[in-house]
Amino acid sequence: MVWFRNLAQISASVARQSPLNRKVKARLPPASFWEFSTSVEDRYSGLGWTKAEEKPRLVVLGSGWAGCRLMKGIDTALYDVVCVSPRNHMVFTPLLASTCVGTLEFRSVAEPIARIQPAISREPGSYFFLANCTGVDPNNHEVHCQTVTDGADTLEPWNFKISYDKLVIAAGSQPLTFGIKGVQEHAVFLREVYHAQEIRRRLLLNLMLSDVPGVTEEEKRRLLHCVVVGGGPTGVEFSGELSDFIVRDVHQRYAHVKDYIHVTLIEANEILSSFDDRLRKYAVKQLVKSGVRLVRGVVKDVQPEKIILNDGSDVPYGLLVWSTGVGPSPLVNSLPFPKSPGGRIGIDEWLRIPSVQDVYSIGDCSGFLESTGRPTLPALAQVAERQGKYLASQLNRIGKAGGGHANAAKDIDLGEPFVYKHLGSMATIGRFKALVDLRQSKEAKGLSLAGFTSWFIWRSAYLTRVLSWRNRFYVAVNWTTTFVFGRDISRI
Amino acid sequence: MVWFRNLAQISASVARQSPLNRKVKARLPPASFWEFSTSVEDRYSGLGWTKAEEKPRLVVLGSGWAGCRLMKGIDTALYDVVCVSPRNHMVFTPLLASTCVGTLEFRSVAEPIARIQPAISREPGSYFFLANCTGVDPNNHEVHCQTVTDGADTLEPWNFKISYDKLVIAAGSQPLTFGIKGVQEHAVFLREVYHAQEIRRRLLLNLMLSDVPGVTEEEKRRLLHCVVVGGGPTGVEFSGELSDFIVRDVHQRYAHVKDYIHVTLIEANEILSSFDDRLRKYAVKQLVKSGVRLVRGVVKDVQPEKIILNDGSDVPYGLLVWSTGVGPSPLVNSLPFPKSPGGRIGIDEWLRIPSVQDVYSIGDCSGFLESTGRPTLPALAQVAERQGKYLASQLNRIGKAGGGHANAAKDIDLGEPFVYKHLGSMATIGRFKALVDLRQSKEAKGLSLAGFTSWFIWRSAYLTRVLSWRNRFYVAVNWTTTFVFGRDISRI
Repeated sequence: MVWFRNLAQISASVARQSPLNRKVKARLPPASFWEFSTSVEDRYSGLGWTKAEEKPRLVVLGSGWAGCRLMKGIDTALYDVVCVSPRNHMVFTPLLASTCVGTLEFRSVAEPIARIQPAISREPGSYFFLANCTGVDPNNHEVHCQTVTDGADTLEPWNFKISYDKLVIAAGSQPLTFGIKGVQEHAVFLREVYHAQEIRRRLLLNLMLSDVPGVTEEEKRRLLHCVVVGGGPTGVEFSGELSDFIVRDVHQRYAHVKDYIHVTLIEANEILSSFDDRLRKYAVKQLVKSGVRLVRGVVKDVQPEKIILNDGSDVPYGLLVWSTGVGPSPLVNSLPFPKSPGGRIGIDEWLRIPSVQDVYSIGDCSGFLESTGRPTLPALAQVAERQGKYLASQLNRIGKAGGGHANAAKDIDLGEPFVYKHLGSMATIGRFKALVDLRQSKEAKGLSLAGFTSWFIWRSAYLTRVLSWRNRFYVAVNWTTTFVFGRDISRI
Repeated sequence: MVWFRNLAQISASVARQSPLNRKVKARLPPASFWEFSTSVEDRYSGLGWTKAEEKPRLVVLGSGWAGCRLMKGIDTALYDVVCVSPRNHMVFTPLLASTCVGTLEFRSVAEPIARIQPAISREPGSYFFLANCTGVDPNNHEVHCQTVTDGADTLEPWNFKISYDKLVIAAGSQPLTFGIKGVQEHAVFLREVYHAQEIRRRLLLNLMLSDVPGVTEEEKRRLLHCVVVGGGPTGVEFSGELSDFIVRDVHQRYAHVKDYIHVTLIEANEILSSFDDRLRKYAVKQLVKSGVRLVRGVVKDVQPEKIILNDGSDVPYGLLVWSTGVGPSPLVNSLPFPKSPGGRIGIDEWLRIPSVQDVYSIGDCSGFLESTGRPTLPALAQVAERQGKYLASQLNRIGKAGGGHANAAKDIDLGEPFVYKHLGSMATIGRFKALVDLRQSKEAKGLSLAGFTSWFIWRSAYLTRVLSWRNRFYVAVNWTTTFVFGRDISRI
């Protein structure tokens, strides 16, 4: 009930007209704000400003790679941490494709935030709020939020505000649909655990329904046609897992319909365009060998039972997975900050939003401002993770130097700027096969691997990246049982 | 495509007016049926009658304990097995309560039918159909079904028919609501995996929302009040798991709201009324000790945010779990067979429906006819499991003697009737505590245990009952990780 206490304290201090201490005074909003404000009560329904003798409050928007890595690294002796996100867990995205077909369990790739940063559920001033950010008011050091109440019949969403000392916007991106009609309605993305659950449900439902008397041959072929749009690592990995699932599991467990199921991967340009030429050729060979049909095409329209390509051809589908990259979310578009090329939140070399005080942005939602002369970094887990780690140590340093509170870091040394060093790209392409591209950039020279060795590297690398020991253990158990007993096919 | 082949064959043979062989002729419906039938095509959209040279077809309605144990035991060299059920897995019901709070994973308690009886997905004449039975026509040896297409946007449910040689109705029961308004709409049952998922989702959502600024004290108390109606083994086990979850996990992981969460168990009579007096007292003591509030009361009305008891008092709730026993389903009520006391499908000592040929019924949906002089057996997993096992060996014996086809078992010896021997009742009541009542009946004398020893027996007994090695392994792994790392709290 800290927020309530804070509210009471602030209200009381305003009412008493007591002399405010210097620090609090410095953080008061400009007089003009009060004139626009219609209701003081409403304004304080949330977490009020921290007092000088309290720990400063770090507000983190988002619970992806960037935000979670930051929270993991933050020194909770220096800051109270408040995380605002519509989900209470981090998704271990590189393994998400494997959960759709039952190679891994959904839980194995979801890490609760409270396990990443236990203070959030234990410390009296740290919180996790299940909510979406609806706006940021940098002049008042406040974020505006709306609760997420999907699934609670008896509660309507409500708005609240949180005052911050430091704010980190790590709210991520959203899938690109290029304005193509029907994508949102009929396709499934592959970014959240519920997406993977939906893909699995549809896949198993289609497998079962195509076996029921009364289905026509045509309908059967349509139901069992899985189409993946987008040939980046996610699309390729999902296609690979799917074709492996078909060869290993469908042929055994759905013997009646095994000849009807097919996977098509549609890409406008080349698949895995960021990878080494040799690796790309290897990937194409492996995918084709495992039965994936590769189609060069641009999607024009998505209808409930078919997609239309721009050459006019129809592609009937039973399952459509859309994975054509990501772009700025409506929140990012609405925020009143200068943008980087590509419309992301513009940041400087220290990951700050330079036009305002105490606001940082990391991960997919941010990009270097043109003025920094640096290129926009790719929307990759490793970029987000590195930025989160860097920013945690920056904020810890600032906190230690006494700059944790709002507007108190002006005189503190900026330290080293963030430098990104690409560690290489990896992608699996079905059973026991993966690509590992260890070059620094597309043009550079360096090591690239394909085949079993790289699959082994890939699995090991990911296994040590799953954050908690519990989930490392579960992933290992999942892989072992899938290997021994085959995949799980219950539709629950 | 056997059904299509059958259809083609039967249509062809009708068209050609070829002399039908004796066996097929014997199984033709009475002439009167044809007069009522409006469309011959429609009639055959499904699996037609088997021919004498084909394996006889055993149709099983349902995939619970009874149906699955039967399918597991059936000799697929003698029969083609067709299972019709709205779910493609068996639920290991005794462990379901543990999944709601994350002690066990959902997958660990769901066993795919194809793993219980692999023939169903491999043999050309065996099938699993995702459908509900809508009616049985015993004169024509046919069942009428409707597909389940929830989740498939592009398909409307359709009807089809299956001809059977032997039919086993193992369609289960449905939760009793006693006509109380609002139960269906606002309460959650605890019989399917999706029920457990819903309970978990609501519990975690309420825990998170009660921590968000703007929630009133009253609302917080309501959101975190978990009410269980029904003091049978399921209600008691769920209450025990829930209070254990609160003590072990909520206190650590939701420290801000830990003083607001409470569990109330409402029962009109005594809890665990089928158990030994001493055990019942022990259970009450343990439940109260672990913080469960026991209320003697009858629910009159269920509203979205509160229930009204018949003494007029209000009980506000955030989660309502309804577990007051089971009764006949609409399908059972609609079937044209004589009923047992209690409205179940009436069966004789050999689990047959004696008024018709080749139809059996097992599990919760059936009960001994009054004429047998036997009492109705309780709706327990162990009854269903024993009946499934017995009937599998009966049908195997009949099949071996050449009586597998429709109307062909008349002259075959009935064999031993089914005899039920109660092996005792078990219920857990929270961490490391369980009741085991090994008495044959409520009046008999015999061994009864409570405490850690019985908890150990309970866990071991269940572990060996989980049907596949994969799931046995997973349950053991789940228990171990919960023990070591605590429960999983991600809301996915």
